[in-house]
Amino acid sequence: MHIELTRKSAVALTGQIVQSFRDRIDSGLLRPGEKLPSVRNLSAFLKISQVTVSKAYSELEEKGYIACTQGRGCFVAVPPEEAPAARPNPEDWQLALPDYLPRAQLWRHYNEGEGMYRFNTAAIQPALLPSAEIGRNIQRLIAEDPALLGTYGPFQGDGGLLRALARYLAERGIAAGPEELLVTSGSQQGIDLAARTFVGPGDTVYMEAPTYTGAIDVFASRGAKILTVPVDAEGMRTDLLTRLCDTHPPKVIYTIPTFHNPTGVTMSMRRRQELLEIARSYRCLIIEDDPFSDLYYGEAPPRSLKSMDREGHVIYLKSFSKVLSPGCRVACAAASGGLISRLTAAKATADLGSPLLPQKAVEPLLARRRYDTYMSGLRDAMAARCRLVTGLLKAHAPSSVSWSDPAGGLNLWLTLPAWVDSSTVYREALKRSIVLLPGAACYAAEPQRNHLRLSFTQMDEEELREGTMRLCRVLHDCLAREKAGPPSKPVF
Amino acid sequence: MHIELTRKSAVALTGQIVQSFRDRIDSGLLRPGEKLPSVRNLSAFLKISQVTVSKAYSELEEKGYIACTQGRGCFVAVPPEEAPAARPNPEDWQLALPDYLPRAQLWRHYNEGEGMYRFNTAAIQPALLPSAEIGRNIQRLIAEDPALLGTYGPFQGDGGLLRALARYLAERGIAAGPEELLVTSGSQQGIDLAARTFVGPGDTVYMEAPTYTGAIDVFASRGAKILTVPVDAEGMRTDLLTRLCDTHPPKVIYTIPTFHNPTGVTMSMRRRQELLEIARSYRCLIIEDDPFSDLYYGEAPPRSLKSMDREGHVIYLKSFSKVLSPGCRVACAAASGGLISRLTAAKATADLGSPLLPQKAVEPLLARRRYDTYMSGLRDAMAARCRLVTGLLKAHAPSSVSWSDPAGGLNLWLTLPAWVDSSTVYREALKRSIVLLPGAACYAAEPQRNHLRLSFTQMDEEELREGTMRLCRVLHDCLAREKAGPPSKPVF
Repeated sequence: MHIELTRKSAVALTGQIVQSFRDRIDSGLLRPGEKLPSVRNLSAFLKISQVTVSKAYSELEEKGYIACTQGRGCFVAVPPEEAPAARPNPEDWQLALPDYLPRAQLWRHYNEGEGMYRFNTAAIQPALLPSAEIGRNIQRLIAEDPALLGTYGPFQGDGGLLRALARYLAERGIAAGPEELLVTSGSQQGIDLAARTFVGPGDTVYMEAPTYTGAIDVFASRGAKILTVPVDAEGMRTDLLTRLCDTHPPKVIYTIPTFHNPTGVTMSMRRRQELLEIARSYRCLIIEDDPFSDLYYGEAPPRSLKSMDREGHVIYLKSFSKVLSPGCRVACAAASGGLISRLTAAKATADLGSPLLPQKAVEPLLARRRYDTYMSGLRDAMAARCRLVTGLLKAHAPSSVSWSDPAGGLNLWLTLPAWVDSSTVYREALKRSIVLLPGAACYAAEPQRNHLRLSFTQMDEEELREGTMRLCRVLHDCLAREKAGPPSKPVF
Repeated sequence: MHIELTRKSAVALTGQIVQSFRDRIDSGLLRPGEKLPSVRNLSAFLKISQVTVSKAYSELEEKGYIACTQGRGCFVAVPPEEAPAARPNPEDWQLALPDYLPRAQLWRHYNEGEGMYRFNTAAIQPALLPSAEIGRNIQRLIAEDPALLGTYGPFQGDGGLLRALARYLAERGIAAGPEELLVTSGSQQGIDLAARTFVGPGDTVYMEAPTYTGAIDVFASRGAKILTVPVDAEGMRTDLLTRLCDTHPPKVIYTIPTFHNPTGVTMSMRRRQELLEIARSYRCLIIEDDPFSDLYYGEAPPRSLKSMDREGHVIYLKSFSKVLSPGCRVACAAASGGLISRLTAAKATADLGSPLLPQKAVEPLLARRRYDTYMSGLRDAMAARCRLVTGLLKAHAPSSVSWSDPAGGLNLWLTLPAWVDSSTVYREALKRSIVLLPGAACYAAEPQRNHLRLSFTQMDEEELREGTMRLCRVLHDCLAREKAGPPSKPVF
């Protein structure tokens, strides 16, 4: 322990030592119960007499700062029961500091819960990703030009990547030039940039119910009035949306039309056209979040909203973060007219633009043939896992449990009997090392409590098999218990 | 050109072809002046008679959609002068779409202006940065574990980096454990996360005048009430701040106390203590932005506000982005008590956490000896450039121009005579391939218009010498012209 002693000070050495310890104890640097250095050691260390140290310790003990016991030494005094009130935590004022994070659930749900069998994040098992190839690209890029690490890139993104993204989109019917694209750190940042640019306190935002937790957090943090529209087998219920819009005109409609997260449902072409029609009549924006459309198991899904958008209503978010490299986090936003320059200004304000190296490293994988070959393999792997899980559920889950049958994507949506609260299953599963996402996290408004989201692509097949079997046992146990006991009611 | 023809339709084939072209022309898919396929080709392609195509083309020409010339073919009609009004741009509705970017100046100032002599960004010449070493770290990390690219990291940051940052801070008197730190994408994101967490519409934020443009953009985008406090040779005028706080209690005080951007001034210890005192009495936050404190030219600067903060008022932002690697963009926020978990929730909402690879690659450079050796070299280089520029200015700039004499950092603050608008100098300089930052960009409220910020560390010494000499000539010319002509007045 370093104590600054001034030998010429007006305060005696004893006093200086006492003050040092008082400061450390008051500030919490020394915590109750912590042992002080022995008299012998401290005097040797500070090069002063043992008597001076002893006197200082006695004074500290008298004043109640420390407690000394013969043979054991001196310890910072543990304050008596009422002490916390008497000596308040100096940081308590922070509790009265308002913030603008009314929700922020994603963080809790993805951070909480350690477990071997992780069904909670819609990520792909690292072994299936082209990390080796991207790694080689990075090594090559660095060897060619290490100064790449020493420069900022353009706010909008690396020119080469923007052109590759434009080609990728053109192949999918989206006519957006490189100047209409913005590179973002995953779709999460794309949603965030669109929201911070166009959504403010009281603005009406429509979302599907259920929807992606991270998007709810974003719009909630902007102070938006969030209205929710249920999803059925054809996607967002545009009939209900139309009626709601009469009384609450939208500023933004957020949708995941293809292999919807969390339900796996794909929006029909008819609904897609209706949605665009609504955007036209209300002159509002659609944020089309599309991380999964390349991950179809059978037929390719219907074309994107953006590809049918003639008047610039759609901000299209395409992420390659999940399917190529969560460690490079390359995604883009496509928007026409004056929207993209506003989003670029927001990107500059948020983080001065994305780093260059990951952008350049991912670019070669977007070349048509390379991408198609890779995706075709990935699709097969994802489809196999989906079949594996649904097969096991069919054979072993309780008969009262049902699940979606997605044609692509990474998620299954489990529905329990209406009287079962999925948070019970969540907690029970956690005890057996299974991490799930409780469906309630996916609702911006009043949640349905009897759902669970299962992301089936993070584990290898062996873990997935074992995890699903364990989950089936948990479901049987929970359902049996819930049935036996009194119906659980919320406590007010 | 693919046209969908329905032979059983009630509409004749001619009508269907006409409609197809009209749709394409109306939607802008076919643009004015674009050539249509020849009658022969289209009829062969659609497997219909040439007569049908001819009839369709005639009808389109009659209706003014296309213009045909014997021998040259048919072209989409170029609308006459008044046409743009008659056929409005389908994206015009976007102009009436409100956004929440009231300012966003940084983006404009850093994107605008191509020029060889770049004084506009406070970045360090890439050749001086340890990119080769970081590059080798990256190559090693990838070789050891390519799966690093395939996984998301913890929202708060990589554990190893957090511990290295905690050690770095402890060596500078800041007692923050790894759990009190958050990795951010540069300080820019740190400012942004702090603002989105704690600043909302109408909240009072104090900033220095002048200050960092990117920070103004952030607080303005949150709808904050921004009050500004002038800076003198001792830093922020705490006497004026105290008086303002009486009537406008602060929620946040944003400051760059050490080698202030743009003026280069360092806040005195007395003012630092006063600032903390103000934070205590008003129970508000201080955002201490500290990118430059290791870049001192002579004496080390006074200790940070954070190191003297006992009650958790200070959110301390430390960036290594500028001094180690703009391409890795590693920075951190240090905050105690419950603040850091709120900031981490904001980080998750913004981008799901920073990528792992750059964090791990930068970590070894933070080791005490390695960092000290490197910084000592960088300090010498920066000091030499500062001397070079100020020496040239002294010898060649007009006598009515003055500048700050910074003891560290990357910026000089030029003051022109009060009657000169620095935007004139900015434009004149641009013509001679010199890019400057007009001082007005650094004011959140009413700007002083006679300043320029010179960042002198982005070019090599040769360019810097030539750029400064050119700048001196521009200054002479502008001052001579302004003196000669009538005083320039704002036009209302």
